[in-house]
Amino acid sequence: MTDPLLFYFDFTSPYSYLASEKIDATADRFGRKVQWRPVLLGGIFKALGTVSLVNQPGMAAYSVHDFVRSARFLGVPYVHPASFPVSTVAAARVYYCLHGQDCAMARRFAHKVFRAYFAAGRDVSAPAVVLELAEKVGAGRTAVEAGMNEPAIKERLRAETEAAVAAGVFGAPWIVVDGESFWGADRLPQIERWLETGGF
Amino acid sequence: MTDPLLFYFDFTSPYSYLASEKIDATADRFGRKVQWRPVLLGGIFKALGTVSLVNQPGMAAYSVHDFVRSARFLGVPYVHPASFPVSTVAAARVYYCLHGQDCAMARRFAHKVFRAYFAAGRDVSAPAVVLELAEKVGAGRTAVEAGMNEPAIKERLRAETEAAVAAGVFGAPWIVVDGESFWGADRLPQIERWLETGGF
Repeated sequence: MTDPLLFYFDFTSPYSYLASEKIDATADRFGRKVQWRPVLLGGIFKALGTVSLVNQPGMAAYSVHDFVRSARFLGVPYVHPASFPVSTVAAARVYYCLHGQDCAMARRFAHKVFRAYFAAGRDVSAPAVVLELAEKVGAGRTAVEAGMNEPAIKERLRAETEAAVAAGVFGAPWIVVDGESFWGADRLPQIERWLETGGF
Repeated sequence: MTDPLLFYFDFTSPYSYLASEKIDATADRFGRKVQWRPVLLGGIFKALGTVSLVNQPGMAAYSVHDFVRSARFLGVPYVHPASFPVSTVAAARVYYCLHGQDCAMARRFAHKVFRAYFAAGRDVSAPAVVLELAEKVGAGRTAVEAGMNEPAIKERLRAETEAAVAAGVFGAPWIVVDGESFWGADRLPQIERWLETGGF
């Protein structure tokens, strides 16, 4: 099989960030590409009537501890954001805006957003911050600022989130390999074995 | 460090079963023992006001798929039980009854219960079934049948479940290594590294 993997994520999801630092290299070892698809977890939770695991009674403190520990386990820099979670509407819209022009640039932007939020303590909910990050990967600020407010871009993000719900996505990261869905950064070893063996 | 690991589990929890097939060997590689502590997840969920992940909207089908796939990944026989979840009060009481006499026998009984439920399709909620399994590991049926109904045994299970809640346990399996808590069979690689390095 040579189809690309699908990687659904939300920029405010810690385990999505961890997966984002690994998934391309994992796929690449098996000659595969990855399609990155930011979605709004809040929209997914609302559609399903669920809440974030982090907000389940008793789970908040453990969850933060596990984000930090899992990052160390994977060798990924992580400082739990002071403001968490945050709105990722602006970042996701800019992603789709860049994606329409240059896939590779959009990918670099996504890494910048994740690292700015989870390692550098930036407030990536602020449009000014995401525009600055877009500029850093080579995008023209004026064009992106106009683009992110276009109805087609807003609709794209809504449509991607709805498509995720329709595909059964209830959390992030959500990675699809040849029709097989995996939820969570902790499923990366299973994804690797699946890529290696074509299923197990 | 040489303290034993603590392994909280519920006999009806698939990921607890997966962990039960691995945790002793993992600990043994680092010269450690494991204290097994069955608890009632239902009691924990009730105390916290939570519900099983399996019962979250949208998650049921994926969860069962993931139980089966994770078992294959770990090389553990697994047939998802027709009746799931089931009451594990009888099994847990018999466990503590045996544990009072012979730790090793209680451990063998726990394995029998998990395998009967998750591999052989037995209804381990039935006292007759757990008594049969207790006999198979060498316990006297009459003594166990009397023991499991003693107030002290009922109280022991209640106390262990309450102690788990007080210790921050909100799901199973829950494994404590030198004061560090890990939730889920998917944290076994982290537990192994923790044992190896004394923390990371």
